[in-house]
Amino acid sequence: MSDKGRVESPDTGGRLRRLRSLLEGHRIDAVLVTDIKNIRYLAGFTGSSAYLVVTVDTGYFITDSRYAGQAALEVKGFRIRQCRKALDLIKEIVASLKVKRLGFESNNLNYAAYLKVRKALKGVRLKPTPGLLTGLRAGKDRFEAQRIRDSARLLDSGYEKAEEFLRPGVAEKTAALEIETFLKRAGADAMAFDTIVASGLRSALPHGKASDKKIRKGELVVLDMGVCLNGYNSDETRTFGVGRPSLKLREIYDVVRGAQELAIEKVRPGVAAKEVDSAARARIEKKGYGGFFGHGTGHGVGLDVHEAPTIGPASRETLEEGMVITVEPGIYVPGLGGARIEDMALVVRGGCEILTRTPKDFLCL
Amino acid sequence: MSDKGRVESPDTGGRLRRLRSLLEGHRIDAVLVTDIKNIRYLAGFTGSSAYLVVTVDTGYFITDSRYAGQAALEVKGFRIRQCRKALDLIKEIVASLKVKRLGFESNNLNYAAYLKVRKALKGVRLKPTPGLLTGLRAGKDRFEAQRIRDSARLLDSGYEKAEEFLRPGVAEKTAALEIETFLKRAGADAMAFDTIVASGLRSALPHGKASDKKIRKGELVVLDMGVCLNGYNSDETRTFGVGRPSLKLREIYDVVRGAQELAIEKVRPGVAAKEVDSAARARIEKKGYGGFFGHGTGHGVGLDVHEAPTIGPASRETLEEGMVITVEPGIYVPGLGGARIEDMALVVRGGCEILTRTPKDFLCL
Repeated sequence: MSDKGRVESPDTGGRLRRLRSLLEGHRIDAVLVTDIKNIRYLAGFTGSSAYLVVTVDTGYFITDSRYAGQAALEVKGFRIRQCRKALDLIKEIVASLKVKRLGFESNNLNYAAYLKVRKALKGVRLKPTPGLLTGLRAGKDRFEAQRIRDSARLLDSGYEKAEEFLRPGVAEKTAALEIETFLKRAGADAMAFDTIVASGLRSALPHGKASDKKIRKGELVVLDMGVCLNGYNSDETRTFGVGRPSLKLREIYDVVRGAQELAIEKVRPGVAAKEVDSAARARIEKKGYGGFFGHGTGHGVGLDVHEAPTIGPASRETLEEGMVITVEPGIYVPGLGGARIEDMALVVRGGCEILTRTPKDFLCL
Repeated sequence: MSDKGRVESPDTGGRLRRLRSLLEGHRIDAVLVTDIKNIRYLAGFTGSSAYLVVTVDTGYFITDSRYAGQAALEVKGFRIRQCRKALDLIKEIVASLKVKRLGFESNNLNYAAYLKVRKALKGVRLKPTPGLLTGLRAGKDRFEAQRIRDSARLLDSGYEKAEEFLRPGVAEKTAALEIETFLKRAGADAMAFDTIVASGLRSALPHGKASDKKIRKGELVVLDMGVCLNGYNSDETRTFGVGRPSLKLREIYDVVRGAQELAIEKVRPGVAAKEVDSAARARIEKKGYGGFFGHGTGHGVGLDVHEAPTIGPASRETLEEGMVITVEPGIYVPGLGGARIEDMALVVRGGCEILTRTPKDFLCL
């Protein structure tokens, strides 16, 4: 892997500037950030309990005694304050800053917590700003792109290893566990989601979490997994053949592969996300499998394994340089089987860089 | 393990009756259940997306096409309805039942989702009922007690295996991964939480998630882990010595052990939860470590690894037959080290059954 242009620390200052530029448009004096991934994004904090209050010209980072030492090491660009009861301190800060209109992450705060905030901050107008950071996080900076690239590289090593375990007679769960153990030994902090190993008739389930079913000869096996490495997720799917799958199953694989390649060819800055979806969908429809592709073509990946943008028929986003998306069409024929192929693509000038590199030629194990 | 009194399926009917008996007291005609663990508890559904609407005399189970087959197999006592958009169907059901006051789980529903529900259910009064199921779930029925017993038994096998890996020169993370892999191969669905392996100075951290630090001779090592088996969690902590820890560390261990045993002796129906806490706390204070025990003594365990009741100085709950609680005092001396010992206790007539059985004699590896 080339270390050219490797960035060693996140540019939280630039991220904060972009957030601040949004406050006026939302008619808020400050925003209360409660989503721990957003807090990591803005402040560089990797712990699990904290809050931010951000105004146009200042920012407070609030945590409790457990994380005080860690915050001092990690957090840049904020006044760090240690609390006993976070809400008491938030109240004090909001009052001292004379905040009149406070945005909050309504897709993160539950209603019971909202009631407590409302009670504590009497006189402050609370304004739901659910997507305030969504758009910012969709476009990755160089630091993030490199982290995601590293995560994808590690994941590829798991796919290489997977061939050992996806064998006739092995239970899906057993195969998943062995591959996961390999990846964790190789450095993964955690799996990004429950690993999907869907074999035989189960390959027709888009979300066939690994089960007790044993893999058998003649089946397709869908392996969809991801790792989290240094906070950044990866997500990849390959479909393997075991023994000699039927010509019909092989055809399904080939149609998916062709559709996925057409979709990837579309990925570049300025293209509507829905065009990537329609490239894959049109091919699958043309081949007669239109009724068997029931999900969208992809999603953004980063600190969350599913984040903006959405790549589907109803997407409104336009692809921009720095976005990292999955391209993952599939065909699922109930009672027969299915296939999905998924890569991660970093949108770069004029096209995309494919971050997941496991070969896609039909591989019979 | 004795299979005497083994109950093979959950008594969801009894649970539903108890929930229904609470509706009038909360002045609601129905409750919208969104917490997936509560849905499992009431309907027996083990999938990951569903909603319930429960009135005094009827109940609707709502899921989408992905889970229709699974719901038909698992769910009893509800009218099962398949939705495209859950909220549209909830609206239709609430209208057909003429619900005027609808309770909802305000500690589960985020504010943005609440706004959508409020908009869809215009004319219905929404009432936050955050703890409606908390109390019900605290007292386990025989089915649940057996599931938790099974989970604890599996966990004990991991503690037996742990001795192999908690050795000088082994990184905490490596030890955790190997023990976890053993437990998953032995049948665990997942770990209940991030495994704590805290050695040496890190043993003074109550939440010392396994790190890259290597275990060294002369250290205490706190191992706090749990498994999820068939939906039910377990939670246990043991503190081991590696090589020959100092007399001071050994003393800390002995004080914790004595305090934990005194607390366990208190556990029986009718006792205030805070008395269990104060039994441990008083002993630790008497031995001069009062300033080094900063957390509560325990918590309930079941479908969630942390649930009601809370066992601490401010607890208001009274122990009842069927509750499953942890008893886990600890001493944490910064710059020196710490120890914690944790067992799970099922409250039974006249006392308790200890579900975790790993020996507690000070073990030097």
